[in-house]
Amino acid sequence: MAASGEEVRNMQVILKDYVAGFPKESDMNVKTGSIKLKLAEDESSDSAVLVKNLYLSCDPYMRGRMTNSPVDDPDFSPFTPGSPIVGHGVAENLRNSSKFTLLMCPFPYYTGILGMPGMTAYFGFYQVCSPKKGERVYISAASGAVGQLVGQFAKLMGCYVVGSAGSKEKVELLKSKFGFDDAFNYKEEHDLVAALKRYFPEGIDIYFENVGGKMLDAVLLNMRFHGRIAACGMISQYNLQQPEGIQNITTVVFKRIRLEGFIIFDYFDQYPKFLDFVLPYIREGKIVYVEDITEGLERGPSALIGLFSGRNVGKQVVKVTNE
Amino acid sequence: MAASGEEVRNMQVILKDYVAGFPKESDMNVKTGSIKLKLAEDESSDSAVLVKNLYLSCDPYMRGRMTNSPVDDPDFSPFTPGSPIVGHGVAENLRNSSKFTLLMCPFPYYTGILGMPGMTAYFGFYQVCSPKKGERVYISAASGAVGQLVGQFAKLMGCYVVGSAGSKEKVELLKSKFGFDDAFNYKEEHDLVAALKRYFPEGIDIYFENVGGKMLDAVLLNMRFHGRIAACGMISQYNLQQPEGIQNITTVVFKRIRLEGFIIFDYFDQYPKFLDFVLPYIREGKIVYVEDITEGLERGPSALIGLFSGRNVGKQVVKVTNE
Repeated sequence: MAASGEEVRNMQVILKDYVAGFPKESDMNVKTGSIKLKLAEDESSDSAVLVKNLYLSCDPYMRGRMTNSPVDDPDFSPFTPGSPIVGHGVAENLRNSSKFTLLMCPFPYYTGILGMPGMTAYFGFYQVCSPKKGERVYISAASGAVGQLVGQFAKLMGCYVVGSAGSKEKVELLKSKFGFDDAFNYKEEHDLVAALKRYFPEGIDIYFENVGGKMLDAVLLNMRFHGRIAACGMISQYNLQQPEGIQNITTVVFKRIRLEGFIIFDYFDQYPKFLDFVLPYIREGKIVYVEDITEGLERGPSALIGLFSGRNVGKQVVKVTNE
Repeated sequence: MAASGEEVRNMQVILKDYVAGFPKESDMNVKTGSIKLKLAEDESSDSAVLVKNLYLSCDPYMRGRMTNSPVDDPDFSPFTPGSPIVGHGVAENLRNSSKFTLLMCPFPYYTGILGMPGMTAYFGFYQVCSPKKGERVYISAASGAVGQLVGQFAKLMGCYVVGSAGSKEKVELLKSKFGFDDAFNYKEEHDLVAALKRYFPEGIDIYFENVGGKMLDAVLLNMRFHGRIAACGMISQYNLQQPEGIQNITTVVFKRIRLEGFIIFDYFDQYPKFLDFVLPYIREGKIVYVEDITEGLERGPSALIGLFSGRNVGKQVVKVTNE
C-alpha cells in the first residue's frame, strides 16, 4: 500500500499555450517526472484518499478549455498554460488495497456509458428531447460516446432512428451493432438538406445535436412542426476562428421548434436515477457500448486531438497504466 | 338591414404578384367595384352571417404569405396573385342590426390587445418564457403590437424590463407610457453587444425575440445561464433574399439556453383563459395599449409596408369605414 511521503513516477500532459484553430499534438508536452505522495487530510482519517489514475476520458468540451475565453462556469474555465490538462477519469484509491469493483462493470465504462457521456445521452434524450413513441429521431456524430447511446435509448422507446457518422465503418456500426434503422456517411453527401430529406421524407421530430454548423442548418430545413433540438455540443465549430453562420434560424418560429442547450454537469445530482435505469439494460445486454481505448498516457495528446478529426470509433479513453 | 342579393360597393387590396425583398405599395392594387351580397347558408338560418369589415389588422407574418414558398401550414400558405390579401379583422354582422358590443372594449382592440398580438404576448411570455419574479427581460420591437404588452406583463410579474425600438418617440413611449425600466434606440447603437451589456450588466434571463438577425446574435452573447428566448418573429429577416447568418448559436450549449419558436394559432382554443386574465387589467387601466390607426382601406398597402420600416407607432390597424 502506497504511503504518504513516498516518491513515485508521474507522467503529465502539459498544455503549452492557448490554442487557436485545430489543436495539434505539438500544442501539448508529455512530461515524466516524480512527485512526492501527499495526503490532504490527516493520514489516519478514513476519508483521506490517495488516488492512482487508471483511465482518462477524452471529451470534446475540453477543447473549449484550451482557449483563453473567460467564462463564469468553473467546469469550462480555461486550462493554465504550463500546467497539466484536467479532465475526468477513473482512479484507484491506494489507501484501500481491495480494488473497488464499482457495480461489476469494466472500469473504462465510468468514463463513458456510466459516466458523463452516458448521463448526457440519458438526460439529453429523455428530459430535453421530450420523446414520444414513433417519433423520428436524427443523431449526428452518432457513433460517438454520446450518440451511440442516444440511438439505443430512442430505439428502446420505439422511435425511428437515423444517425450520421464520418466513415463507412462507423455507419456499419450504427446499423449492425447499435440497431439504428438507418445511417449515412455525411462526408459522402454534398447536399445535406437532400440527404436528410431522403432519410426523413416526412421530417424530423427530434434532432440530437452534436456537431452544429452546416448540419444544423440542413436539419432546420427538415424539422417537423413542434420539433425539438437538444443541443449537446457543436464539435464542428470548436476549432474555427470564426463560426459558420446559421442561415435558417427563422424556421424555429414558423415551425415552432424548441432548440435547447444543456450541460450534463447540471444533472450530476441525478446520477443514481440514471444508474437505476441503465444498469439493468447493460446487464441484460440490451444496451451495448463501443470504446476506443488508447494505451499509455504518452499517447494522450494524439487521442485527444483525434476527436476533432473523428479518428476515434466510439468513446475515446486513455488507459494510463497496466500496473 | 342589408339583404342577400343586394349590390354593394366593395374595395379590395389585391396582391399583384409575389414579392422579393422589401414590399412596396406598387406590389398591391386597390380596386373598387361592387359585389352582390350572398349568404352561404339558408337565408332563414340563425347562424348565417353577413359581415361588413370595420377594422383590418396589419401583421408582420403577412409578409411571408406574399412569397411563393409552399408550407404545410394553411395559416402561412401563400396569397394568390390577382386576389385580395387575406388577414384578420373586426367585422359587423349585418344580419343583426344591434352592433355587438364585444365585452365593452373599443373595436380595434380585437385586432390588437384582445386579438392575435395580445394572445401572442400573453402565451409567449407566460408559457414560453417561463418567467420568474425579479428576472431580467429584454424585448426587441418593444413598442410594437406585441412588445408593448410583453413589457407590461413582465412588469406586473416584478421583472426588470428593458426594450429597444427604432425612434426617440418610441423609446419615450416605452419608458413613460408602458413603464419599462429602461429603453434604447437600437438605430443609435453601432455595437449592439455593448449596448445590451450596458443595460444588462449581469446578463439577460429572458429575451422576447421579435426581430432576429444581428440583434439575436448580440443577445446570445449577453444571455445568462439557463436563459430563455421566445422566438415570436424575426421581422428583420423577412425581406432579405439571403438571411443574415447567426454566428453565436454555440452559446446555447454552454449557457444552457432554450430558444423556442411559437405561433399563436396553436393557442386559439385558450382564448377564454386569456380574456379572463387581461380584461380586468384593461378595465382597471393597469394595462394600456397604443394603436396606430390608418383611415381608409385605400391606405392599407401603405400601412402594411410601413411595418417593415417601423413607421407605425404601436399596433397598426386599418379603419375600413366610417359608416
